Amino acid sequence: MAYTLGELSERLGVKLRGDAGCRIERVATLQNAESGCVSFLANRRYQGFLRATRASAVILASEFLPQCNVNALISANPYLSYAKAAALLNPERTFKPGVHPSASVAKGAKVHPDAHIGPHCSVAHGAEIGARAYVGPGCVLEESAVLGEDGRLVAKVTLCKNVRVGKRVILHPGVVIGADGFGIANDDGVWVKVPQLGSVVIGDDVEIGANTTVDRGALEDTVLEDGVKLDNLIQIGHNVQIGAHTAVAACVAIGGSARIGKRCTIGGAASIAGHLEIADDVHLTATSAVPNSIKEAGVYSSGMPIQENKAWRKSVIRMRQLDEMARRLKAVEQRLKELNHD
Amino acid sequence: MAYTLGELSERLGVKLRGDAGCRIERVATLQNAESGCVSFLANRRYQGFLRATRASAVILASEFLPQCNVNALISANPYLSYAKAAALLNPERTFKPGVHPSASVAKGAKVHPDAHIGPHCSVAHGAEIGARAYVGPGCVLEESAVLGEDGRLVAKVTLCKNVRVGKRVILHPGVVIGADGFGIANDDGVWVKVPQLGSVVIGDDVEIGANTTVDRGALEDTVLEDGVKLDNLIQIGHNVQIGAHTAVAACVAIGGSARIGKRCTIGGAASIAGHLEIADDVHLTATSAVPNSIKEAGVYSSGMPIQENKAWRKSVIRMRQLDEMARRLKAVEQRLKELNHD
Amino acid sequence: MAYTLGELSERLGVKLRGDAGCRIERVATLQNAESGCVSFLANRRYQGFLRATRASAVILASEFLPQCNVNALISANPYLSYAKAAALLNPERTFKPGVHPSASVAKGAKVHPDAHIGPHCSVAHGAEIGARAYVGPGCVLEESAVLGEDGRLVAKVTLCKNVRVGKRVILHPGVVIGADGFGIANDDGVWVKVPQLGSVVIGDDVEIGANTTVDRGALEDTVLEDGVKLDNLIQIGHNVQIGAHTAVAACVAIGGSARIGKRCTIGGAASIAGHLEIADDVHLTATSAVPNSIKEAGVYSSGMPIQENKAWRKSVIRMRQLDEMARRLKAVEQRLKELNHD
Repeated sequence: MAYTLGELSERLGVKLRGDAGCRIERVATLQNAESGCVSFLANRRYQGFLRATRASAVILASEFLPQCNVNALISANPYLSYAKAAALLNPERTFKPGVHPSASVAKGAKVHPDAHIGPHCSVAHGAEIGARAYVGPGCVLEESAVLGEDGRLVAKVTLCKNVRVGKRVILHPGVVIGADGFGIANDDGVWVKVPQLGSVVIGDDVEIGANTTVDRGALEDTVLEDGVKLDNLIQIGHNVQIGAHTAVAACVAIGGSARIGKRCTIGGAASIAGHLEIADDVHLTATSAVPNSIKEAGVYSSGMPIQENKAWRKSVIRMRQLDEMARRLKAVEQRLKELNHD
Repeated sequence: MAYTLGELSERLGVKLRGDAGCRIERVATLQNAESGCVSFLANRRYQGFLRATRASAVILASEFLPQCNVNALISANPYLSYAKAAALLNPERTFKPGVHPSASVAKGAKVHPDAHIGPHCSVAHGAEIGARAYVGPGCVLEESAVLGEDGRLVAKVTLCKNVRVGKRVILHPGVVIGADGFGIANDDGVWVKVPQLGSVVIGDDVEIGANTTVDRGALEDTVLEDGVKLDNLIQIGHNVQIGAHTAVAACVAIGGSARIGKRCTIGGAASIAGHLEIADDVHLTATSAVPNSIKEAGVYSSGMPIQENKAWRKSVIRMRQLDEMARRLKAVEQRLKELNHD
Repeated sequence: MAYTLGELSERLGVKLRGDAGCRIERVATLQNAESGCVSFLANRRYQGFLRATRASAVILASEFLPQCNVNALISANPYLSYAKAAALLNPERTFKPGVHPSASVAKGAKVHPDAHIGPHCSVAHGAEIGARAYVGPGCVLEESAVLGEDGRLVAKVTLCKNVRVGKRVILHPGVVIGADGFGIANDDGVWVKVPQLGSVVIGDDVEIGANTTVDRGALEDTVLEDGVKLDNLIQIGHNVQIGAHTAVAACVAIGGSARIGKRCTIGGAASIAGHLEIADDVHLTATSAVPNSIKEAGVYSSGMPIQENKAWRKSVIRMRQLDEMARRLKAVEQRLKELNHD
């Protein structure tokens, strides 16, 4: 696809400085852009590349206009405008509706005639696949799993029994939705399985990254509300609820029955214990460990950044002495007070 | 399935207070139960819901009887009794024996006639699948992999060459058993692969969660003993041994050649270094990092829970000053001692 | 395969002490070796097993010769020599070239006649598979994905659109290369997808462990240089670059746009933030958290090893008081100084 800058400016709803007739064919970074490219400046650390860019146009905030020697699309949110421009210039691949001959679709499954079912997919009895949905190679939909309109299962996605997925959802390769939660009861030293009888309900416009797992509920459903975005290799335990428009970076573990609010952001490799609540608009930085509920919106952190190894070894020893140090400090303070009174 | 309370009481081996003829059709939480449901109280934090429940019966410890206005099944271990009731009321799906026409089963494979092989499975030469085993869609058994009686590979499970899996084992979607361990030898800056010649042996009654990986041994076997329960997205390195009835929560990493005892519990996102031993009955709380052997049973922990971001930033700076602080504290103590002698 | 010790000594380029005609059939640990086995001593913690081993020969450093009662292959790098001996004695399985009848290969795909495509694979239009490549059961190559000569996709590997993989690469089951990176732009509380238009380029001799994910670049390519070795369940974010011969242990998370140097080693469960640079020859121990660039080669660490639970609870409280403690210590020092001047 190609657009003139005038067309882009109109479609993105941003102001143009420069040649409305300039033809734009693709997006590129400031450093690697060439003629026909639109670039963007969304992160200050890259502003050094602005002056010398060979892009035909740059999407940027108005404050950077003086440093921009080419056409400019002026946006209050350049990254968002860039995302929209990139989507316009790179429309989603189209696909042919229909079921690949190697796919196995049970008689009782309902596949919309506009949907695509790729090679080696298995669609069980009672499963439903909505209009314009794309089911890539090797996906499995167990009994009564539902994939909404315009959904996209890229490849090798598993939707277990009764899982319900909303509209315009994108699930990347290896995603497993609705495997049994980790429910075990101890019988005198031996673990007995607790049947996992709930399911998973996923709202509209959710995207889930490669090899992420979302367990089915024990008795009620695990729920991801509309617009939730999960990165790769995340674990969502049974009965978890994640509020609308919360985004979670890679390698996060969320324990069973946790309730996460709306519009939260959770940094990579964070871990959240089960049976707690996190308020709306909480932001956790990477590697945060959350053992208890968070009742107030805000930014929270934990974790210990690296030190040179020898220094760290000393820190570790001292951390183990912390309680003793605190008591010694108190004793010193006490002694000083006594000296004052001597 | 449905049972009378009298039947349930007998089958669970617990005492009934109330109407033995009351018909129970399903399990539910205290909050959402309706007539025909049995609920349970296993966690004190939910006792507030007991008085108002509309369940037909509740499984609980005798101490909560006074607060219970409906029929009661009195159990010393209500969660276990609930697990058993849920299993009775929700029997496992049955399946048809036989091999799906789209599956690829090598001539030299031995599939028990009572087993089920689903669509798009690949079963290689020498593989064995036991009586009443269920192999769901898209599973792969490489050469000479063995799945015991009553096993259940839900979907897309991979059993690599020579892996041996016991009876009544449940492996959830995306599980990989027997991929090569991470063995590399350094040849003047270049890594050379160390052949991984062992296999994996999994005992009876083991359950392994979605996308968990268990590597094959380098020379001998990686071993999971009977009754081990692993949650999702766990990594078990080569040569690891895990003792019977140990349970591991999600996102745990266990390094190569670690030996974990029996009846341990390992919390989510914990990490255990390789080449160490952990005694029987050790309990690690979530996010624990274990660099060395643990010789005594007990509860162990590490990790730094979140603080408000600004406070954490200060903590981080202070942690790096800890060694210096410790030395300054010592100097202060010394100076005070001298003052005493002045 | 079997070799005489004389042949092994020559092929490994190491000195032999003992019987050149002795026949060696397999490798084994010192403890479990029998006649016909070659064993090795590469880790001092196992030297206690040397004297009593029943191996026919042991690969070891010359300093251990006095304790060795059997034939010896004397190597400056016994682990490397062992790796080579194990590879000689256990050559890779051979496979039949050709496409399994259940595989789905698009007309426009180029599959080398010497390559093997296993059951239930999907190879899309424009994909290329090189000479002697092995594509195991259930793999997916999307449009224009390229797998180089002598590559090995063990099973259920996904290569997304345009991904390019070099020669002699081994990808273990469940690996996903080229899923969309986690790019989202915020539009007044709602996340908008940022198209991920780059791809992934993987060099020669790379090995990647089970269920690891490597995301495609946002605009340019994610790059793993030659000889990179990744263990299981690792996340590599979009635009990441990893230098040649860097090795990464399991469960590591590497954030988007990070640039990791050559010959680094990264311990298990470490996490590396995005948009930073790590120099060549940096070594991170397990559980290290890296928030900022590392400019100097060296060994770095973080993380808090376990304590007995009660002690840890105190440590946690004290950690939160650290800043206050530091200020109290300063006050004490000040007071002492004043006392001196009194």
